[in-house]
Amino acid sequence: MANGFNVAVAGATGAVGVEMVKTLEKRNFPVKNLKLLASARSAGKTMKFKGEDVVIEEMTHDSFKGVDIALFSAGGDISREYRPFVVESGAVMIDNSSAFRMDDDVPLVVPEVNAEDIKLHKGVIANPNCTTAIMLVAVAPLHRAKGLRRIVAATYQAASGAGAKGMHELIVQAREVLDGKAVNPVAFAHQIAFNLIPHIDAFKENGYTKEELKMLNESRKMLHLPELLVSCTCVRIPVLRAHSEALNLEFENDITPEEARAIIEAAPGVQLVDDPADKRYPMPLDATEKYDVLCGRIRQDISRNDKRGLDIFVSGDQVLKGAALNAVQIAELL
Amino acid sequence: MANGFNVAVAGATGAVGVEMVKTLEKRNFPVKNLKLLASARSAGKTMKFKGEDVVIEEMTHDSFKGVDIALFSAGGDISREYRPFVVESGAVMIDNSSAFRMDDDVPLVVPEVNAEDIKLHKGVIANPNCTTAIMLVAVAPLHRAKGLRRIVAATYQAASGAGAKGMHELIVQAREVLDGKAVNPVAFAHQIAFNLIPHIDAFKENGYTKEELKMLNESRKMLHLPELLVSCTCVRIPVLRAHSEALNLEFENDITPEEARAIIEAAPGVQLVDDPADKRYPMPLDATEKYDVLCGRIRQDISRNDKRGLDIFVSGDQVLKGAALNAVQIAELL
Repeated sequence: MANGFNVAVAGATGAVGVEMVKTLEKRNFPVKNLKLLASARSAGKTMKFKGEDVVIEEMTHDSFKGVDIALFSAGGDISREYRPFVVESGAVMIDNSSAFRMDDDVPLVVPEVNAEDIKLHKGVIANPNCTTAIMLVAVAPLHRAKGLRRIVAATYQAASGAGAKGMHELIVQAREVLDGKAVNPVAFAHQIAFNLIPHIDAFKENGYTKEELKMLNESRKMLHLPELLVSCTCVRIPVLRAHSEALNLEFENDITPEEARAIIEAAPGVQLVDDPADKRYPMPLDATEKYDVLCGRIRQDISRNDKRGLDIFVSGDQVLKGAALNAVQIAELL
Repeated sequence: MANGFNVAVAGATGAVGVEMVKTLEKRNFPVKNLKLLASARSAGKTMKFKGEDVVIEEMTHDSFKGVDIALFSAGGDISREYRPFVVESGAVMIDNSSAFRMDDDVPLVVPEVNAEDIKLHKGVIANPNCTTAIMLVAVAPLHRAKGLRRIVAATYQAASGAGAKGMHELIVQAREVLDGKAVNPVAFAHQIAFNLIPHIDAFKENGYTKEELKMLNESRKMLHLPELLVSCTCVRIPVLRAHSEALNLEFENDITPEEARAIIEAAPGVQLVDDPADKRYPMPLDATEKYDVLCGRIRQDISRNDKRGLDIFVSGDQVLKGAALNAVQIAELL
């Protein structure tokens, strides 16, 4: 494939799909031919790629003939339906949905965390949950140095987690509230403007949400740590597109904030933003449209009587590192 | 004092002062005479109390003659300056600032937590930090039943924490952002609309902020638990006036979510809002202008191999339970 790869983007018109196309262009991915796939509703419209108009096609079971890499971001049901057709055509499916993430025969990959797992794929590679991906880019290098045991996480998740309609709802609602008008929540369970909602995805019997349990299960799989302990509270806040997380970390070995800063500074995909005296710390506004996850507020956990605890704060672009960028990075490694 | 108390409100025109006056009225506090004190700038203006106009007076060292109870919410420097004059006049000072909270001769009180400490006062009783007060109303009854050992907290704090000017800045800024205009942060270190800021109060050498350390030190004092361990990350979010907190709690003894719910349901000052199936959990919008702190998302901490851990989520009105209401409740107990 001297001339590059034939790439398909399934769900090209969604918030993540649009960023996948932009990221392929910005990172100069060797695309021989780009196929943009969506529902019949969007077929015939065009999207720009490297200055040229690409016509969006309706996705069918035959769409993947001759395709090398298929980036999927059209929801779990679509991924499940199309998987056999993609694999049969010989393409590799990089799937952003949660459909196959915990399947034994599907590697779940963040390149900075477990790139080596990619080679185990049997036609499908899964992109992790956005909140997990953002967390692990910062936590994995600390784990490699000091051995991670436990995470207590509280998240500050952006409206973009509910797609373009989530961002739209926050913007429309904020103006309605400012104008004293009634609001009508659709994308979220309650009003999100000037409010928060401690509820993302469905609740399970143990009181955690599926989103919160993904932080546990996907972290265990990607870090190859079946005993890792994680408790998480996932909260939607009125921010547009970057997720933040307050992380309380426990390690096997002692770790100082100075060591942690040096590790983060040397790690790929994460940028140290930790100068409180200069009012510099991770914020979603600064993380937006950045490839790197921002990491700061690093301090020795004072709620322990040893040096094995660390508190950190991270912000990362949910649409990029949380989804589109990560998928393209996986494609780059193929 | 069969006819009630002579009450002074120092800082009557601030966000908390206004709510103190409203709360005295709403809770039918036995006020014989109400003195509203503020800076020269506000003197001569009037505020309503029980349907009548009360003229605001400029506060001087002589203002407290004949006063029984002086509610202070005008900042730590003013409290420090006026303390000797208030005490000398024979009035009891109930102070909302952080000036005397950790002083050995000043009880720090949330009535639902440690009402018994009030009787130890020597003229001054301190109101705790708002975030600590909201947390302890929910946590204290759990502690009494099961013995609290450690808290890992992440907060979601409202703009009202910076007073009326904080709320104003959020509203003005939100409209500027929606209109595509430049913003000019004054009350906060950075843009708060559609953003978050993991920085409340000044940073200390250990990387924690003073706000975060108040959660540790004030909790230890009020719960009479000098060994209590607390690590906290305090974050400002674009919400108007109720603070929320994700709390990971560790106890001396086993505790189940069912036990915790029964304890919360029976406790004063806190309302159980914990029916995820019906999309009911604490949210700042629902806590706003409520006396009770809302508590929900109660679940067994799955990041432990025992039953001593609990995750909970609380929301409370920062201006009321976090400040004005708590001060009036202390006055009621005098």
